[in-house]
Amino acid sequence: MLNFSSPEVNQFLHTYEISLFAVSQDEQRIAISTNLSGEFDVWMLDLPSTYPYPMTKVGQKTERLMFDPFGRYLIVSFDKDGDESPQIYALGPYGGQLHPIVEAKGKKIHAQALSGDGERIYYASDKDNPMYMNSYKNDITSGEEQTILVGTDALTFITAVAPDESSFTYNRAFSNMYMGGYVQIGEQSESLTPNPNLVHRVRSPIYCDADTIFFWTDYESEFAYVAKYTISCKEFIKVFEMDNEEVTNIQIDKQNRLLYAFTSNGVEDHLYQICLHNMSSIKIPLPVSVVQHTQIVSSGNLYISGVTETKPSNLFRRDACTGEWIQLTQNRVMGVHPDELTKAQKVSYLSNDDLEIEALLFEPKEERLNGYTIIWPHGGPHSAERKKYRGLFQFLCHQGYKIFAPNFRGSTGYGSSFAKLAEQDWGEGPRLDMVEGIEWLLMEGKADRKKLFLMGGSFGGYMSLLLLGRHADYFQAVVDMYGESDLISFLESVPDSWKPLMKLRLGDPKEDRERLMNDSPISYVDGMTKPIFIIQGANDTRVVKEQSDKIVRALRERGRIVEYLVLEDEGHGFSKKENEILVYKRIAAFFEKYKI
Amino acid sequence: MLNFSSPEVNQFLHTYEISLFAVSQDEQRIAISTNLSGEFDVWMLDLPSTYPYPMTKVGQKTERLMFDPFGRYLIVSFDKDGDESPQIYALGPYGGQLHPIVEAKGKKIHAQALSGDGERIYYASDKDNPMYMNSYKNDITSGEEQTILVGTDALTFITAVAPDESSFTYNRAFSNMYMGGYVQIGEQSESLTPNPNLVHRVRSPIYCDADTIFFWTDYESEFAYVAKYTISCKEFIKVFEMDNEEVTNIQIDKQNRLLYAFTSNGVEDHLYQICLHNMSSIKIPLPVSVVQHTQIVSSGNLYISGVTETKPSNLFRRDACTGEWIQLTQNRVMGVHPDELTKAQKVSYLSNDDLEIEALLFEPKEERLNGYTIIWPHGGPHSAERKKYRGLFQFLCHQGYKIFAPNFRGSTGYGSSFAKLAEQDWGEGPRLDMVEGIEWLLMEGKADRKKLFLMGGSFGGYMSLLLLGRHADYFQAVVDMYGESDLISFLESVPDSWKPLMKLRLGDPKEDRERLMNDSPISYVDGMTKPIFIIQGANDTRVVKEQSDKIVRALRERGRIVEYLVLEDEGHGFSKKENEILVYKRIAAFFEKYKI
Repeated sequence: MLNFSSPEVNQFLHTYEISLFAVSQDEQRIAISTNLSGEFDVWMLDLPSTYPYPMTKVGQKTERLMFDPFGRYLIVSFDKDGDESPQIYALGPYGGQLHPIVEAKGKKIHAQALSGDGERIYYASDKDNPMYMNSYKNDITSGEEQTILVGTDALTFITAVAPDESSFTYNRAFSNMYMGGYVQIGEQSESLTPNPNLVHRVRSPIYCDADTIFFWTDYESEFAYVAKYTISCKEFIKVFEMDNEEVTNIQIDKQNRLLYAFTSNGVEDHLYQICLHNMSSIKIPLPVSVVQHTQIVSSGNLYISGVTETKPSNLFRRDACTGEWIQLTQNRVMGVHPDELTKAQKVSYLSNDDLEIEALLFEPKEERLNGYTIIWPHGGPHSAERKKYRGLFQFLCHQGYKIFAPNFRGSTGYGSSFAKLAEQDWGEGPRLDMVEGIEWLLMEGKADRKKLFLMGGSFGGYMSLLLLGRHADYFQAVVDMYGESDLISFLESVPDSWKPLMKLRLGDPKEDRERLMNDSPISYVDGMTKPIFIIQGANDTRVVKEQSDKIVRALRERGRIVEYLVLEDEGHGFSKKENEILVYKRIAAFFEKYKI
Repeated sequence: MLNFSSPEVNQFLHTYEISLFAVSQDEQRIAISTNLSGEFDVWMLDLPSTYPYPMTKVGQKTERLMFDPFGRYLIVSFDKDGDESPQIYALGPYGGQLHPIVEAKGKKIHAQALSGDGERIYYASDKDNPMYMNSYKNDITSGEEQTILVGTDALTFITAVAPDESSFTYNRAFSNMYMGGYVQIGEQSESLTPNPNLVHRVRSPIYCDADTIFFWTDYESEFAYVAKYTISCKEFIKVFEMDNEEVTNIQIDKQNRLLYAFTSNGVEDHLYQICLHNMSSIKIPLPVSVVQHTQIVSSGNLYISGVTETKPSNLFRRDACTGEWIQLTQNRVMGVHPDELTKAQKVSYLSNDDLEIEALLFEPKEERLNGYTIIWPHGGPHSAERKKYRGLFQFLCHQGYKIFAPNFRGSTGYGSSFAKLAEQDWGEGPRLDMVEGIEWLLMEGKADRKKLFLMGGSFGGYMSLLLLGRHADYFQAVVDMYGESDLISFLESVPDSWKPLMKLRLGDPKEDRERLMNDSPISYVDGMTKPIFIIQGANDTRVVKEQSDKIVRALRERGRIVEYLVLEDEGHGFSKKENEILVYKRIAAFFEKYKI
């Protein structure tokens, strides 16, 4: 009977996030890091009630949350305003003032484990070894610190401690794709994989008992799998793998001898339960599309936080006996029934070279459609569009736009070979995957050739510029958020420390000059004949403002329609909600203007 | 093992409040008005989960919350930044944009009732009748408005509507103590009490059925009681009264024919269940000391919000079958175990004329005591110190102070004769009650004669000044927050509209000149020999800044120790948390300085 107004953009953007959580072993209490009051703080739920109350008033995200096994304190670590230098504190059981446990201002202190009696904390820090880090244990009562591991040659940090503290595991990280895993027993160190000199990753080690360590690794494999290392017999065994899925996290129910493996296959996550007696596995349904954090407690109950494309982050508990999931928090989009939000459909098509490309297609309900489709190349390119909540997408879908987001070659989650296809190739393979995706969409009758828009940020902004330059006919109008316009000056402008990595990923400004020019949007300005809206943060250190200035100048010289918005108080992306709301409103208004 | 720091003052002050709530009839949802995000907004709990999610982002307290019986919308009314002119809106079931139902900016629109089918809303407003208000009904779908009651001679407003809308009740309010209650049936109007011309109050009318109205009244009584009016036989009957307790609110469980009466006896509230078949009553334990809001639903479950001296406002449900209370929200003082907060003990003593005076005594645990006692005359004087949460008290008690707060003559909750004892007498009776209270405290060995402080705000500030002027020997140091120093200029400075009321309450600046001078602190400056800290809001319209300036000047002329803090952005009391925190820290530091 009452005709309520349509939701405004801020309703889609003012959603709450649960950035981390921890459950006490007796499952009486759950600590969450959330921005319920506007800023991030630690809040507590005393089960069975789920009404939260604050434990801190520091306005910072926590990097770590750990309950003392005896409930005497909670370990929290905060950095300051994103300085990425977390410090370790204890909080009393009712919160309040932070009690410093390990502090070294401006240095990174990463809490990793508590001893079983809650008396000692293990952590890694760069405070005495800025290049490679050391690892320490600290007696919580006396504050006495002992160095237990010195980093050499690679970033070295403790990852887990044996239940009886007889050994600990650690990583030696050479790059994001090369992280050797080791166990230190007294003076002796062993690799958890047969050959530590091969490039591979070892992550998430968990002691099942003092002799047995489970972890995930992509050792000699296209996709990461679960493996086991037995200390006494120095034995490495593959435990569980799933075709075309990447293991991303594991948890162990020691009492029932069950292992839970979380996997990612491109756009969403899956969960498997593996019986450690016979290694048989079953798939467990998940209440979310993408899992953010996980914890298992001694009862075998499993806790996760996660999201879907229509639901911001919430906390769930899976009952070990019934297998049922219960949602413990109620974060949602204000004023919009969940059914009114737009679900994403996974689709796939063959690219020009017959490579299969997966994509997410957001199709609003029939009665809402406005006939237009927005093409979205994601950022990265070493990333992927997944079934996560995005306020911008839901806002635009609510206005009637379809959104099409292909995981072009180079995207993560499809195996390491697929991910490497964009190395040294930003402008050919990925671009043609986008073009083929658009053609597939048109052929399937899912979009109208005269009603396409294009929009992307960072690498997606670069791709939007490039597609506009080389395939302008497809689009009515284009939005570029802080995308690279000139790959040569881009490579010259990145911080020195990134240069080796960028050379591997993209190329060398001198050696690869011709290819880079060929792949640079600025080389195709003449072709950029459609209206464009460019958004740039003035303080962006990744894609510097000159990248946007340059293309804006070139387009204006040619008399093209260009709107240019520079955000004086932003870097790469939007840190402030008001800016995000402003930009998204402007984007909607811009597209509105160029509807036919 | 870890020695956590003592809580800081902001922990005691940064507590959340539930200013209002409403429960849907099916008990699936509870809407609360709370400042969880820093500002007040409407949040929803979807039972059985109690994790709240926001319904509005307006940053205002709601005056009214009502669920449509069919769940299609929620009625909310907000004023703007305390302008006391609420407007009526509907919210969709998932919140979001406000949908105006009745708006007249700058005018008061008080929503009072919804029709049983949720199609019509009843409200009172001054929009067409600024002096006396009219009452209206409005068709929610069409927006069509009909005037159903025109105010004349007294503030007139609808209070309840019969289930079949065949009649409605209204009040005619001449003063806070004189509010006649009527029922309007068609063209006919009847008084709910036998003689509407006697001074009395009729409040909280509830239709048990279309013929029967329950309400509370103090018609011909010292204390308010529950009464019933039957329309068909025009019969007024007293239903329930409790010696020395004032009924303040009623709820009716129609299905089980039970009436719940909430009463106040000075420092705390009580609850009684009355069987409407035989009028027998039993006392029901309450989970709080002071009840704030109440609602009953058709199942007979009773919902209340309330506080204790150690617990900020929370929501509770009493199960109609088991009689058990369940706490639904978890507001508390951050970082302090509830047992570490100081409970208030009700004590009483005889004053100089043998009148019994009740008081609250806050005695921190033995190990926390610092030996000092703070004497607290409450504001008003037509008010009372009750077992409510006060951050300032808990903060000071946590530092080891005892606090002694007498409900001197003139306080409310002890019958109308007792309340009237301070009319035209601010400086004699109430003052001597304070003095006798201190003597009693000393005699009982509950305080040390050399370790007394004195503190109060508004009337309590006036009383502190007066006690300092006439009984300085008792106190080590005194704090006065915006207290009157000169009653004559005070009476001359109040807004014109208050003058008749102030004449009744305090006196006439001309006729009562001598008494007013005699009762004015400024007449006793010579006696004010102890250090004093005076706090005043620059924009105070009730006790204007000149009241404090005057006493500060007089004291400084005599070379006395005076600290004076003027808050440029405050009126009468503290509207801003930062100011409150600053003042309370300064008070603690001030007392600290004058410990011997």
